[in-house]
Amino acid sequence: MMMGDDVENGNLGPYLDRPRTFPNMRSKPYTPLIFRILRGINVRVLVILLFLGFGYVFYIGISEAIRDGAEGFFKTQYGTISKMAVLLALVILSIYLFRNTTPQQESSGLGRATSACITVAAFLLGALCSGVAGYVGMWVSVRANVRVSSAARRSAREALQIAVRAGGFSALVVVGMAVIGIAILYATFYVWLGVDSPGSMKVTDLPLLLVGYGFGASFVALFAQLGGGIYTKAADVGADLVGKVEQGIPEDDPRNPAVIADLVGDNVGDCAARGADLFESIAAEIISAMILGGTMAQHCKIEDPSGFILFPLVVHSFDLVVSSIGILSIRGTRDSNVKVPLEDPMTILQKGYSVTIILAVLTFFGSTRWLLYTEQAPSAWLNFSLCGLVGIITAYVFVWITKYYTDYKHEPVRTLALSSSTGHGTNIIAGVSLGLESTAIPVLVISVSIISAFWLGHTSGLVDETGSPTGGLFGTAVATMGMLSTAAYILTMDMFGPIADNAGGIVEMSQQPESVREITDVLDAVGNTTKATTKGFAIGSAALASFLLFSAYMDEVSSFAREPFKQVDIAIPEVFIGGLLGSMLIFLFSAWACAAVGRTAQEVVKEVRRQFIERPGIMDYKEKPDYGRCVAIVASSSLREMIKPGALAIVSPIVVGFLFRVLGHYTGHPLLGAKVVAALLMFATVSGILMALFLNTAGGAWDNAKKFIETGALGGKGSESHKAAITGDTVGDPFKDTVGPSLHVLIKMLATITLVMAPVFL
Amino acid sequence: MMMGDDVENGNLGPYLDRPRTFPNMRSKPYTPLIFRILRGINVRVLVILLFLGFGYVFYIGISEAIRDGAEGFFKTQYGTISKMAVLLALVILSIYLFRNTTPQQESSGLGRATSACITVAAFLLGALCSGVAGYVGMWVSVRANVRVSSAARRSAREALQIAVRAGGFSALVVVGMAVIGIAILYATFYVWLGVDSPGSMKVTDLPLLLVGYGFGASFVALFAQLGGGIYTKAADVGADLVGKVEQGIPEDDPRNPAVIADLVGDNVGDCAARGADLFESIAAEIISAMILGGTMAQHCKIEDPSGFILFPLVVHSFDLVVSSIGILSIRGTRDSNVKVPLEDPMTILQKGYSVTIILAVLTFFGSTRWLLYTEQAPSAWLNFSLCGLVGIITAYVFVWITKYYTDYKHEPVRTLALSSSTGHGTNIIAGVSLGLESTAIPVLVISVSIISAFWLGHTSGLVDETGSPTGGLFGTAVATMGMLSTAAYILTMDMFGPIADNAGGIVEMSQQPESVREITDVLDAVGNTTKATTKGFAIGSAALASFLLFSAYMDEVSSFAREPFKQVDIAIPEVFIGGLLGSMLIFLFSAWACAAVGRTAQEVVKEVRRQFIERPGIMDYKEKPDYGRCVAIVASSSLREMIKPGALAIVSPIVVGFLFRVLGHYTGHPLLGAKVVAALLMFATVSGILMALFLNTAGGAWDNAKKFIETGALGGKGSESHKAAITGDTVGDPFKDTVGPSLHVLIKMLATITLVMAPVFL
Repeated sequence: MMMGDDVENGNLGPYLDRPRTFPNMRSKPYTPLIFRILRGINVRVLVILLFLGFGYVFYIGISEAIRDGAEGFFKTQYGTISKMAVLLALVILSIYLFRNTTPQQESSGLGRATSACITVAAFLLGALCSGVAGYVGMWVSVRANVRVSSAARRSAREALQIAVRAGGFSALVVVGMAVIGIAILYATFYVWLGVDSPGSMKVTDLPLLLVGYGFGASFVALFAQLGGGIYTKAADVGADLVGKVEQGIPEDDPRNPAVIADLVGDNVGDCAARGADLFESIAAEIISAMILGGTMAQHCKIEDPSGFILFPLVVHSFDLVVSSIGILSIRGTRDSNVKVPLEDPMTILQKGYSVTIILAVLTFFGSTRWLLYTEQAPSAWLNFSLCGLVGIITAYVFVWITKYYTDYKHEPVRTLALSSSTGHGTNIIAGVSLGLESTAIPVLVISVSIISAFWLGHTSGLVDETGSPTGGLFGTAVATMGMLSTAAYILTMDMFGPIADNAGGIVEMSQQPESVREITDVLDAVGNTTKATTKGFAIGSAALASFLLFSAYMDEVSSFAREPFKQVDIAIPEVFIGGLLGSMLIFLFSAWACAAVGRTAQEVVKEVRRQFIERPGIMDYKEKPDYGRCVAIVASSSLREMIKPGALAIVSPIVVGFLFRVLGHYTGHPLLGAKVVAALLMFATVSGILMALFLNTAGGAWDNAKKFIETGALGGKGSESHKAAITGDTVGDPFKDTVGPSLHVLIKMLATITLVMAPVFL
Repeated sequence: MMMGDDVENGNLGPYLDRPRTFPNMRSKPYTPLIFRILRGINVRVLVILLFLGFGYVFYIGISEAIRDGAEGFFKTQYGTISKMAVLLALVILSIYLFRNTTPQQESSGLGRATSACITVAAFLLGALCSGVAGYVGMWVSVRANVRVSSAARRSAREALQIAVRAGGFSALVVVGMAVIGIAILYATFYVWLGVDSPGSMKVTDLPLLLVGYGFGASFVALFAQLGGGIYTKAADVGADLVGKVEQGIPEDDPRNPAVIADLVGDNVGDCAARGADLFESIAAEIISAMILGGTMAQHCKIEDPSGFILFPLVVHSFDLVVSSIGILSIRGTRDSNVKVPLEDPMTILQKGYSVTIILAVLTFFGSTRWLLYTEQAPSAWLNFSLCGLVGIITAYVFVWITKYYTDYKHEPVRTLALSSSTGHGTNIIAGVSLGLESTAIPVLVISVSIISAFWLGHTSGLVDETGSPTGGLFGTAVATMGMLSTAAYILTMDMFGPIADNAGGIVEMSQQPESVREITDVLDAVGNTTKATTKGFAIGSAALASFLLFSAYMDEVSSFAREPFKQVDIAIPEVFIGGLLGSMLIFLFSAWACAAVGRTAQEVVKEVRRQFIERPGIMDYKEKPDYGRCVAIVASSSLREMIKPGALAIVSPIVVGFLFRVLGHYTGHPLLGAKVVAALLMFATVSGILMALFLNTAGGAWDNAKKFIETGALGGKGSESHKAAITGDTVGDPFKDTVGPSLHVLIKMLATITLVMAPVFL
């Protein structure tokens, strides 16, 4: 509980002390293993690893937190997930025991058994870290919400600060864990396999051993997001349909039997799941960038490739520092007159974001100069800095576009609200078309950034033996890192949302005075906007990360198949069909995830209706509703419902790849399985990005159109327009909080599963 | 009016007389041009062309029909479309005057000016024929509906027969026009260019000159579908939202000021637009199959390639015959006791379909043996017959799947209806997930048929000079022909729907006795199912046709760029981005088309509400509503709204291709523009198929879920479930009748525009 009290008091000792712990750690390695690692590797690597070490501070704090924080649902959910993870680990193990080894592995004496153990260990560590990241997000959130609501009784400023700090704590833990997990794995393999010593593995091949970590992370994230997403939205939709629409009682009213399930859901779905989502984004992006950096360094015969390989780890370590500063910068006004009305919280959060972005640009330029300078191409680091800048700008633009389409200050949501005045039907039609339209500009932005980063990298001056430029893909990788270089701050804003939402719920349920509610309402509204915008960010980074993982996949296949795999030619009918199946996978996955919420919500509706009928005293506060039954229904249903879409996502690429491998074998097409899977992956990514953008934006816009009407526009609360807007909001709930975010995870999971399962297709 | 009376009396002289007109035509060519053609070409071609000639019978009948049939909206709409077509023709002309010529063209002395004129002439003829096809569909429909409604007063059987015959007439005209237009063009070019004589063009290069025809057809079809689709659904949604939901009056009630606009819309949107849609499918499929047949015949050095080139024309000529027999087979029971209650009309229609399919299989086998037999590969014709069978089975399965997902006899729609009982929100969520899920099986079916047809063709024994098999793509082409070999019958069932719907409206409006209404209601319900199933057929054939057009595009580019263009490698970032943009195009187009309906419907809602307020006597039949204003609002709005999505579809591929051509030029990537456009096309096709399947099925399912509740289930008419189901139906209207069908046309239009505009990308 010590950590929790610190959070409430705004005394985030560990962050403030970090710079000071850093020099101490230099001479004090924690375990003999680390000690061995530190001696075994060269000086630059040493400095980098030590720099990462400060993350341990978080890790130790968490271990205690996990023990006493986990709620029933998380235990059950993660229990189910870990059973599946162990099963999958056994599958991976058996596949790898029969897979061929690469020439590189053979020359370094890395046998099948070792390779299998490495992949499985990385997978399990990735799964574990992701689980821990989810736990922490939830743990902090369920504690912070009470404190935010009690702080709201004292001062708006304090409530804001506690919510931001709590969100920041989770965010830093999530990002820190991703970085540290990979750093530990990398260092362990480095020492264990005697990398770079004669007759053993080259350092440029090392990153390929880490793919299991990314897959573990995305595997857990997928089920965390699905289970959590179904939980939170089934409860929310169920509560709203009976409470708000049929009975006309306010949101979060204690008379609603589903209200506790709804509040629990916010933590499960939003905090835990988004934590696992961004953890996975960062892990996948680091690993793919390391692989690409290693491959490029090898092609260009760069003498010391460690800079290129470790660059992503450094960028994300700096992210921890600059985002902490951004979070702490919000503290500035705290000690002034606490009773002064709060300035717009969105402005405060954006000021912090600006601080973070400026610092991120500076540290990014510094890191590129430090690690990516090579005498072969003296100006390459500058090109790569510009790639990073492209990524940072992309992140900023994505956040801005999502805000434009989902904030009721702008045209689109106002038009949507207006369409509610002509009925439920026109509201839905307008929301669907708004969501579909909102995909256009993000796609153009992603296109421009991929092309410009690719060309900046291409013209960086790095050339392979034949003299042709090779830096293009690494340029895209650096842009992705740039995009994610403020991930911790973005995640803070995201975590802030559900904490504020929950605090509002607690205030409502405990029937606090109007003034307290006003404060939490303002925070809740801001939280809605930040939640929507960070989804834009998450999908943008997922798009870029997946693009990198394709390239890593093609490298991996080339390496294992011992023949070049450079093209995915969709003019071949089978490959085209792979693409068709990939896009279909996205539609079917979305269908099942959406149906899961619908079915569970219907169960909740029936239960809530039953309670209102059987206990007529509930409406007059004479009888207490049975909150527990709703919680139980939602929990068991969401655990059951998450299996089908999750299994679909995992099984499909494996089955498709294997079937076409067999077909290719009989029709004389080597690599057919691998090519079909590549097309599946690319089409699924494209469709997934578009579908997620559509669902997230439509959902956010419906939510805010309803909020706009609740401000008194178009008849205000209780009018026919408001009822139509509530229908839109209800439909948008599973779109934006179950299916959309699950698709972010899905497209990255597909990319990592194909990497790990590549031997099945060959 | 003579034709019209014939239709009413069931006296379809032209069909019955057809076999007899055939021998007469043999010795009586209509124009000197035809006469010259007949003398100029070899005997087999002569027989084929004569065989096609009977279609002229329709053409002469139509010319009169067009003159007196066209309604105001069609005149205005087609006026706008023809202005745009002329503008586009000028653009094409100027592009072709500056394009490079192919080596084949040079060797045959085909200059730029000739090539430009040929393309523009083909484009304009295609546009004209498509316009005529649309006119005929509408012309017949607006006359048949009155006759069906008056026949319903006498006998159900007669009403069914008139509706089917009228639909059949339009369908035969549409299919006949597609075949005859291409046959005329082919023959004209053959004679004019002196094909196959020494020093001039080879017959295998001739089909490439026809692409303009396909583009003209798809250009008109796109705007016809967009304008008509927006018209019909804006009127429908607007009428329902105020009439059914707010005022509680029945559908098609004469008190509703928007009811006439709604009835006009059925003809404009469903009959005219679907006619143009299938006209375009058939034209595109014939041309692409002719191109592929020509290319393959050339590669395989087949002595007389005319069989391969003309095969598609023959298949569709047989379609006219077998579908006519199918349509006439419904007549069988007519003369028996007319007062006996009608057996299920769906059963009758399906019996006719079975007759048609059996005959189609037989004639297909016959045609393959006749035209595709070659001594080089004696069993090739058998393989191609099987390809055709694959296509016919695919068509059947597609129709069945759509029926499963949209008919309330089956599980999915019943579950959807059940979800209405928990509110508007759960109904929409369930409908969206049903629609998304329904994409899965069609995609699997399409995948299996593409692969199996490809392999049947591949193993047909046809080999090129180097001995490698070349028949694969042609196999897919034959499968597409198989799928479309019953197109006229399918189109008949489709046209039947709106005629029955309209007849029901007229019966309702003229307040006929209950027994008459019952008859038209049964026909209307069957029409809903047939309309939904034919959409499944249309999207399946569009998928296959587009796949063929890719290959034709690649051949075209190779030929003009004078270098091989065999691969579309999506591992190249620019090409991948082309794909991303292609998928995005589908989303944006859908957004705009959907928003257009929403906006127009809101205008209608406001107008209808205004009339109800300003003329309170309407509800008591004391005042007459102003139908004209609603018609005027919908007409002007849909003409305005069709421009934006239509322009997007036409401009995007050209702009993307041109930009990447320039980028490729400066970065040393020849063909970059063409490759990016190819990826755009393929990704757009995949996303378009999925999106169209989703929209069509969701819309159909919502409609029938509402109808299911109206049968008395879950509370029946007027219950809360029914209100929720009406919301679903309203949302589904633009999905299934505006955006979905527009996407069918869009994906084929994209394929033909890239073929015609290829010089811009090179």
